[in-house]
Amino acid sequence: MPNKFPVLQIHGNLNRTGVGIFDLMSGIGAHEVIVETPEHFLSLATMPLKAVEDVLWTYYLRLMDLKKDGRFKYVMIFKNEGEVAGASLEHTHSQLIALPVIPKLVREEIESASKYYEFKERCIFCDLISQELGDSRRIIYQNDSYVALAPYASRSPFETWILPKAHEPHFYPPKEKFTGLAEILQTVLKQMDRILDVPPYNFLIHTSILHDGMNEYYHWHLELLPKLTKIAGFEWGSGFYINPTAPEEAARFMREAKI
Amino acid sequence: MPNKFPVLQIHGNLNRTGVGIFDLMSGIGAHEVIVETPEHFLSLATMPLKAVEDVLWTYYLRLMDLKKDGRFKYVMIFKNEGEVAGASLEHTHSQLIALPVIPKLVREEIESASKYYEFKERCIFCDLISQELGDSRRIIYQNDSYVALAPYASRSPFETWILPKAHEPHFYPPKEKFTGLAEILQTVLKQMDRILDVPPYNFLIHTSILHDGMNEYYHWHLELLPKLTKIAGFEWGSGFYINPTAPEEAARFMREAKI
Repeated sequence: MPNKFPVLQIHGNLNRTGVGIFDLMSGIGAHEVIVETPEHFLSLATMPLKAVEDVLWTYYLRLMDLKKDGRFKYVMIFKNEGEVAGASLEHTHSQLIALPVIPKLVREEIESASKYYEFKERCIFCDLISQELGDSRRIIYQNDSYVALAPYASRSPFETWILPKAHEPHFYPPKEKFTGLAEILQTVLKQMDRILDVPPYNFLIHTSILHDGMNEYYHWHLELLPKLTKIAGFEWGSGFYINPTAPEEAARFMREAKI
Repeated sequence: MPNKFPVLQIHGNLNRTGVGIFDLMSGIGAHEVIVETPEHFLSLATMPLKAVEDVLWTYYLRLMDLKKDGRFKYVMIFKNEGEVAGASLEHTHSQLIALPVIPKLVREEIESASKYYEFKERCIFCDLISQELGDSRRIIYQNDSYVALAPYASRSPFETWILPKAHEPHFYPPKEKFTGLAEILQTVLKQMDRILDVPPYNFLIHTSILHDGMNEYYHWHLELLPKLTKIAGFEWGSGFYINPTAPEEAARFMREAKI
């Protein structure tokens, strides 16, 4: 555990914002902004590695704290970097949104993983990691505990997933340490900054729902999408994504980046 | 039927574009670009009304032609206007993409409508139109055959739906005329240009799957979304949208626009 967090937290509540899902839920929720460093010109790619580790600790500790409120079913932890990716503040920051419902897309992923487990009696993400490490063409980077890869059906160029190699349903510090996760995350962000000239991006932690225990079917991971293509009519209407860059190519560029 | 189309058609095929859904489907499909006018500086909002009608006829006739190819299950008809909304050509144009599968989002909407029909024995869109016309707060514009409204759970500010008042599963010219549809579409686009200073936008025709006959549960409509907000981490991860503008407000602004 770190001794000190060089991280500010701004708390707030989700208000009714026009008409939307929150309208149906009496406005219960929490929205927190995590300011990742006091230095205005640093980013997760350029700050000291220890500071990235502290940001991950802050995600975890805030998640554990929000979990105490039984009204919350899911906490989204995400980052929008750059105006094009939807960042409304310039100073580097991440966000948490605690929700009283399980979002549709989260539910779909969890249900799919659960069906696969019923069918195969294995975690789909553990199978994916093992297959990708065997094939190696889509592997971007790995350290002892984590692997970064370009998913086979990448939705956009340079889509990158970071997964713990061990089966871990919830976002969690193994052996009380986030060192390995900080190292792989910063490495991938440095590679991306190098190859794509500091692109805007979104990342999102996909973790189990809050009170789902040590389930065997879900495996937390981080999905990172540089914002290089636009969501237009076709994507809006179909849910399909047009991706002009093969993930094998993207992974090779990332691996060969001089950082 | 119009005598003459002042409309060019560019045909092409969907190639394998990296890895994606098309990879799994042997690359069968069609992609067409409909150039709406030879005049570079006109838009659907500013061209003669008759030209808008011709564009709608072109959508319909291309749809009927593509329907003859039994491999296609669905045709998406959509328009991206403005670079921010994903338009890669500046000259005003629409697109058709014929697909050998029913897209996930289309299937979900059709299945929901079908479930509602099983439960209520009424079309959900007919019910919606009747309720909204009764309430009137979210009505933007109407003529004899069509209504334009701001949906109750609008995903983004000024989201606008245009629906035929009569039950019509497929995109279709009533009494062999698209005059009414051209008139309401152009009116709404003029209102939007006035209120939002010629915004980028996407629109998409939601119609039945190709070989589904005169079904009772689905009702074609056009969904128009000006691109005013950004899809960021929260929306990517949850499928929920944050909309700061109440649809009642948006509808009032649109109604009161001096066009």
